[in-house]
Amino acid sequence: MTNLPVTQTFADFIAAATWDGLPESVQQAARRTFGNCVALAVGASQSDPVRRVGRSLAGLGQPEHASILGHETRTGVEAAALVNGFAAHLEDFDDTHLRTVVHPGAPIVPAALALAEYKGLDGRAMLTAIAVGIEVALRFGNGICPEHFDRGWHLTGTAGHVGAAAAAGRVVGLKPEQLVVAIGLGATTASGLTAALGTMTKPYHPGKAAADGVQAALLAADGFTGPPQPIEGRRGLAQLSSSRHDFDTMLDGLGDVWEIEANAFKPYACGIVSHAVIDAAIALREQVADGVELTHVEIEVNPVVLDVMGVKNPVDGLGTKFSVYHCFAIGFLEGLGGPEQFGDSRARRADVVSLRDRVRVTTDARIPKGAAHVVAHLAGGQSSVEIEVPNATGSAERPMSDEQLREKARLVASPVLGQDLDHFLDIAFTIDEHDPAALLALATSAAR
Amino acid sequence: MTNLPVTQTFADFIAAATWDGLPESVQQAARRTFGNCVALAVGASQSDPVRRVGRSLAGLGQPEHASILGHETRTGVEAAALVNGFAAHLEDFDDTHLRTVVHPGAPIVPAALALAEYKGLDGRAMLTAIAVGIEVALRFGNGICPEHFDRGWHLTGTAGHVGAAAAAGRVVGLKPEQLVVAIGLGATTASGLTAALGTMTKPYHPGKAAADGVQAALLAADGFTGPPQPIEGRRGLAQLSSSRHDFDTMLDGLGDVWEIEANAFKPYACGIVSHAVIDAAIALREQVADGVELTHVEIEVNPVVLDVMGVKNPVDGLGTKFSVYHCFAIGFLEGLGGPEQFGDSRARRADVVSLRDRVRVTTDARIPKGAAHVVAHLAGGQSSVEIEVPNATGSAERPMSDEQLREKARLVASPVLGQDLDHFLDIAFTIDEHDPAALLALATSAAR
Repeated sequence: MTNLPVTQTFADFIAAATWDGLPESVQQAARRTFGNCVALAVGASQSDPVRRVGRSLAGLGQPEHASILGHETRTGVEAAALVNGFAAHLEDFDDTHLRTVVHPGAPIVPAALALAEYKGLDGRAMLTAIAVGIEVALRFGNGICPEHFDRGWHLTGTAGHVGAAAAAGRVVGLKPEQLVVAIGLGATTASGLTAALGTMTKPYHPGKAAADGVQAALLAADGFTGPPQPIEGRRGLAQLSSSRHDFDTMLDGLGDVWEIEANAFKPYACGIVSHAVIDAAIALREQVADGVELTHVEIEVNPVVLDVMGVKNPVDGLGTKFSVYHCFAIGFLEGLGGPEQFGDSRARRADVVSLRDRVRVTTDARIPKGAAHVVAHLAGGQSSVEIEVPNATGSAERPMSDEQLREKARLVASPVLGQDLDHFLDIAFTIDEHDPAALLALATSAAR
Repeated sequence: MTNLPVTQTFADFIAAATWDGLPESVQQAARRTFGNCVALAVGASQSDPVRRVGRSLAGLGQPEHASILGHETRTGVEAAALVNGFAAHLEDFDDTHLRTVVHPGAPIVPAALALAEYKGLDGRAMLTAIAVGIEVALRFGNGICPEHFDRGWHLTGTAGHVGAAAAAGRVVGLKPEQLVVAIGLGATTASGLTAALGTMTKPYHPGKAAADGVQAALLAADGFTGPPQPIEGRRGLAQLSSSRHDFDTMLDGLGDVWEIEANAFKPYACGIVSHAVIDAAIALREQVADGVELTHVEIEVNPVVLDVMGVKNPVDGLGTKFSVYHCFAIGFLEGLGGPEQFGDSRARRADVVSLRDRVRVTTDARIPKGAAHVVAHLAGGQSSVEIEVPNATGSAERPMSDEQLREKARLVASPVLGQDLDHFLDIAFTIDEHDPAALLALATSAAR
């Protein structure tokens, strides 16, 4: 609890923001987050889990109000937000704010997109809402991390709920006092267990956050009432869900320092904390002659890596995304870490399984989260090779360039979009100059 | 964390239950819970908050699949579950499991009812699902209370989510392994801040639990995957949300000892922990001659009373429901504690405000939660009157009889149902012998 009016300050900030008032670096961060998110949702749209979720919700009967990316059939606004949020996070290939391990795109972009489509907003107004919703989610996360995460909460679900409600509230034009109610509804529905990692329930978290955010905004628009301090109050979300609740950190420099600028993009389709291990494996591959076997591999990382990525013997694609052992194996064997390297077939391939079994991981809290130290022992002449990766590709220190990010988006969306791909990417990464309807027309044409 | 397979045991229990296998006392407890819940939802159906929620959800576009009690227009299954759950809890006049302070009817009955209507289940199958869903919710609550509540979680939202998913899963006929997934979805969406007490966001919690339970059941029916131990696992809901997690208590005597039998019904339309104070005020009213003023009143109660009911100067009806001061005042001035005594007009009436100001409340942890000790100091001759209430009306020790409960249901539903009232009550309290459609035809006729 605090005397700082955290929720009210967030609400005023959300209501007052304008696109032209955002620094160019923030505008570009928002464009990148949007483009990456919708490309991933399109890319995963034909997968079995996304089809299942869409089918289950369709079974409840849906009006044709909003688009599911990659599908021609329209659905309800909440359902569209849910399916798109689920799809965007399914491959664990989305954006990450490393300090909080929030993936802000998947819960927040689909909420704003579905409502913007339904309400006929232009791209600029929608992207403004996304920028401020993400900012609120990440700042909330900054104030409760890492204790909130350590307790077992999946921040993309919890902080995602707060941010999705904030963004959706801005899309429907809520006044500050209504935004307090919407944020309160986001906080009171905030949820998500990290026990769900490696199952379909994990990407359900941002999907649910997006859908609940839509509902929060619509209720708040019609005179709903809620607690005045849902985040910072005595029984607000911060106190309930974390032993640390630093409200100064949540508000420090709001509007001047933008957390969305620290939103990083993944070059590899798995948990971000092992990206340095893949970088190391790829570097190692370049140093070891073809045909030379690795007898065993020692990897040293921060303890969070084994916490999140500790699956020793994954049996399916989803499981491999949480296996640092698998990350090393595919990086070394293939030099890549895309969705294919984390698919079901790779999980059981003999050479992958065999190499995973030769990897030993130890942890040291002094090693930064984004770093890795790898020593590979070789069969034959050369005794061992040592690789040090201080910062992973895609980290805040080594961010993907705009070109790299577009290339990644192209890679994930191309199996679905075909000839519309370039036009789709042009609009996705400059959505502030377009109507969301133009993007959605392309993104739903695949099924036609 | 534990070696007990809590979730799996719950799942097996839910799948195996049959109506005829339930003890008669459990069957009757289920009938009472159902009848009380639907009568309250009907009674609140014409209120402004319920109309607002219905309108907001209708604004998203809804198929006509399920009934909103007290309204002719049908809506989507999730929306019906949400509105009915919201309405049932709105007046804080519903059922309470005192050990956990879970109100199990509002999150669980509407989930089962909306799905049963949609799927065409008979009343017996539906009530079986409600009985086992409630049992799971209350047993989960028993294992994490009171620490979970003390931390600030609203159990009707959290345990309600688990129970609603369980009941909805049974309605759609899930197999045990699918029920584990449904319970996991209930656990991963479990939420609700007690910061919301006294606002519309509080009854939103059971409404949301009901709606999320419906969605959980439908996803689990179509091959969704989730964590194997969402309740008891290392990062399961119990560990995340409470410092106490007693898994033995959750499972002890499952199927032999039924917590639903300890589900109590409120004679007064406010937080159950001050019911003894209203009993005391009514008893005092009978002992004090007309016209004699109370100069001041001292009330001693368990600390939980001020925790939950500490609003000193409520300004509207919702606020009065969380004011032990108001409870005393209306009990003494009117001898009643129905919805009218907790309405907006009473919150500001001069005689009520004046008497509230003369009430002082102190707490003592040795006083049981359901008890109250009141000393009233009188103006004029008689110096003081002392009243001791060891157990409130409606408590497990002094439960409402079937006749009292039906009379209460009649009182709350009569402003809406008119001539159909008795027929509605006949069916509501024997729903195991009827089709839900018959009940809903009566409960939705008000608007015709």
